Amino acid sequence: MRNLDAADGLSRRLAAFLRNASWEDVPQTVRAHATRAVFNGVGTALGGACDQAILRLDEALAPFSANQAATVIGRRARRDALTAAFLNAAAMNVFDFDDTHAGTILHPTAPIAPVVLALAETQPISGSQLLHAFVLGVEVACRIGAAVSPGHYDRGWHITSTCGIFGAAAAAAKLLDLNEDQIVWALGNASAQASGLVETLGFMAKSTGVGNAARGGLVSALMARAGVQGPPRPLEGPRGFLAVCCGAPDPERIERKLGVEWEIQRLMFKPYPCGVVLNPVIDACLAARTAPAFSVNGIAEVMVRGNPLLKARADRPNVATGREAQVSAQHAIAVCLLRGTAGAADFNDAAVNDMQVRALRAKVRRVEGDETTPIEAARVSILYADGSSHDQSIEAATGSLARPMTDEALRQKFAALARYGCPDLDAEPLAAKLWDLANVADADAVMALARP
Amino acid sequence: MRNLDAADGLSRRLAAFLRNASWEDVPQTVRAHATRAVFNGVGTALGGACDQAILRLDEALAPFSANQAATVIGRRARRDALTAAFLNAAAMNVFDFDDTHAGTILHPTAPIAPVVLALAETQPISGSQLLHAFVLGVEVACRIGAAVSPGHYDRGWHITSTCGIFGAAAAAAKLLDLNEDQIVWALGNASAQASGLVETLGFMAKSTGVGNAARGGLVSALMARAGVQGPPRPLEGPRGFLAVCCGAPDPERIERKLGVEWEIQRLMFKPYPCGVVLNPVIDACLAARTAPAFSVNGIAEVMVRGNPLLKARADRPNVATGREAQVSAQHAIAVCLLRGTAGAADFNDAAVNDMQVRALRAKVRRVEGDETTPIEAARVSILYADGSSHDQSIEAATGSLARPMTDEALRQKFAALARYGCPDLDAEPLAAKLWDLANVADADAVMALARP
Repeated sequence: MRNLDAADGLSRRLAAFLRNASWEDVPQTVRAHATRAVFNGVGTALGGACDQAILRLDEALAPFSANQAATVIGRRARRDALTAAFLNAAAMNVFDFDDTHAGTILHPTAPIAPVVLALAETQPISGSQLLHAFVLGVEVACRIGAAVSPGHYDRGWHITSTCGIFGAAAAAAKLLDLNEDQIVWALGNASAQASGLVETLGFMAKSTGVGNAARGGLVSALMARAGVQGPPRPLEGPRGFLAVCCGAPDPERIERKLGVEWEIQRLMFKPYPCGVVLNPVIDACLAARTAPAFSVNGIAEVMVRGNPLLKARADRPNVATGREAQVSAQHAIAVCLLRGTAGAADFNDAAVNDMQVRALRAKVRRVEGDETTPIEAARVSILYADGSSHDQSIEAATGSLARPMTDEALRQKFAALARYGCPDLDAEPLAAKLWDLANVADADAVMALARP
Repeated sequence: MRNLDAADGLSRRLAAFLRNASWEDVPQTVRAHATRAVFNGVGTALGGACDQAILRLDEALAPFSANQAATVIGRRARRDALTAAFLNAAAMNVFDFDDTHAGTILHPTAPIAPVVLALAETQPISGSQLLHAFVLGVEVACRIGAAVSPGHYDRGWHITSTCGIFGAAAAAAKLLDLNEDQIVWALGNASAQASGLVETLGFMAKSTGVGNAARGGLVSALMARAGVQGPPRPLEGPRGFLAVCCGAPDPERIERKLGVEWEIQRLMFKPYPCGVVLNPVIDACLAARTAPAFSVNGIAEVMVRGNPLLKARADRPNVATGREAQVSAQHAIAVCLLRGTAGAADFNDAAVNDMQVRALRAKVRRVEGDETTPIEAARVSILYADGSSHDQSIEAATGSLARPMTDEALRQKFAALARYGCPDLDAEPLAAKLWDLANVADADAVMALARP
């Protein structure tokens, strides 16, 4: 590919950037958003800590955990760093409640934050060192993601896993103080393990891919430290990641304004535990409920119109599990109109089988896509049995770049997730410590507060 | 893809086949070839046991090994089953001296045999149970490989790793006695981890991919046993492995004559520790040496003509490491004409830097590809300084389907590899036990003999 020929040396330049990057060069706004991302990620891990997928993955992996060096967020039992990184990544992402990078729809915190948190428990690092490695990892994952978008995801690659592993490897490489050669090798070892299929979304095996991205990234850096050499061009080589995993990669996207514009600033936080395409739909339902004439019992039919992705990803009238509900517009509309809430308890197995939700779900007749509607917008139309109707439009969903979640809303989300997933944990000190992470001398202190 | 629509139910039917398969249905010739494959695989692992790549991978992984349940072939220290499966797979393949499946160029024993050998140390199974699971794993890996060939490898996927993980998962699923649902989940968890790039060939990171295929396959089955559910169509789904990893998959190839014709019978064993395209080249050099007029000192120039793949994969005049030498026609010609041998010691770092080899390597002026030459054929032309010349043609290389290695040659290869990689091990009892594997009551006995 001609554009790959032009990218010769890309992997090495990226390694040099990572090697030479300094916390002093990271602007305050970037630091603050990184803090929000880790805060939000630990919150979603608390919420997912006891999900069946995570418990079952732990059942399979625990017999192969070598020690108790690292915390599984929200759990008493500890695991070795690789296993903890796997489980925490899976837990952060299991409800699809973690962050989203605008443009790639990559969820970078899940594969990356667990790696730097696990390393904080095995070597002394400060909160700012942790945040810096995290910021760099997010840059690597999101920039590689942008270079292979949109073809990569469209083809069927779960971009969070496939590109996340490079971010995880980069973040680990920074904390392990690898030299330039070793960083290239870390990326090479990651390239040999990069994986994850969209086919697994909606099933527990999605978590297998996400967990593996975190574990694989960390082990790639550890292998590089031990001298396991990789190819010189793992990204831009003729049979490297970009060429193999994308029909028309744009490698220049990886280096454009690197260290000047920060991808982490394009991270959006989700107000609701489900696919990002559902955010404006839920906003619309919660707003519609406040209309004076609203009556859930009078509803005859509901339809929704949104971006074509809404139809492609979330036109799912029949759902059997909480996981499927997370990507079902029909379920989201029914549960939100009925309950006026959109939390973890509204997208679990019990909510799916709630008789009232099921009845209302059957009344959601049409999910329509429309090329002119942006992804953060949607219109919900309610038709009542008496012939009246109500339309509710949302232009910019809560959590979109145009209407970001406030810090206060993030705190409330964190507290609600902790209550849902870890009722035994006093989450308040953990929240305070995370919010102050840039000033924490020993980042290990965070994880000590994440165990009940 | 239309041909994938026609394959609906493929994953489940494959799972049913695996669940219901019985050793009694496996013909004697298939059993014998499976025994040869495991024998040859353990031999190549002995040879690679102390290669730098394996030592470094072990350095990175050993701190995360939970126990000493499983043998690392040729080593005293034991590791947990996942780590041992990783290291043994990497060691079997590190010299490219393991077996090759005709048609796909997949090396199935490396990702699969280590899994069944590790399970033999953690649960009681007989030699025939081990061989049966191995045979089934090879079927799954090679049939999936055939379904995505040739586009998959051409695109840059290292098929041994990407398809090997499904074979490893299938073999483990059989020994773990998983039910049909669980086998589909095991394939789904494998699909979330399937990876490996051709870009890594010639570098230690190739071993990362191969090791990961074995480890990932085993952990996929263990996850399925723990209830980690996967998608119902991990192979044939619209965003499943076949659609994502191949432009024009032939899913029908997976089921055609399943249980009737056995892919394992298309496994070829390598007489020389290097890329399979070099086999006829080496045969030609060893034969040329026996000509009365042969004189290594008189050689002015050498050229070789073979299949286009010879040129594509092995036209490599400048080599710096043993790994690169394994895919260098120039090196193979030089070392074989000079020494008259083609063993592990002829394709290591020392051989690459041997001054006499370097001098002769520089005289190999041309490596040519020719569409009409089959992959198992080649012609080496030697031009002497006195103007005379000698041409040596090989029609069917040693180790090809048309001219398979004899059992006696396999025994000699095994013994030579053991001497090379594990001089402290008495390899004779191990060889005898492996040769009799189908009749061994407790397969654990094999691995007990594989430690010095």
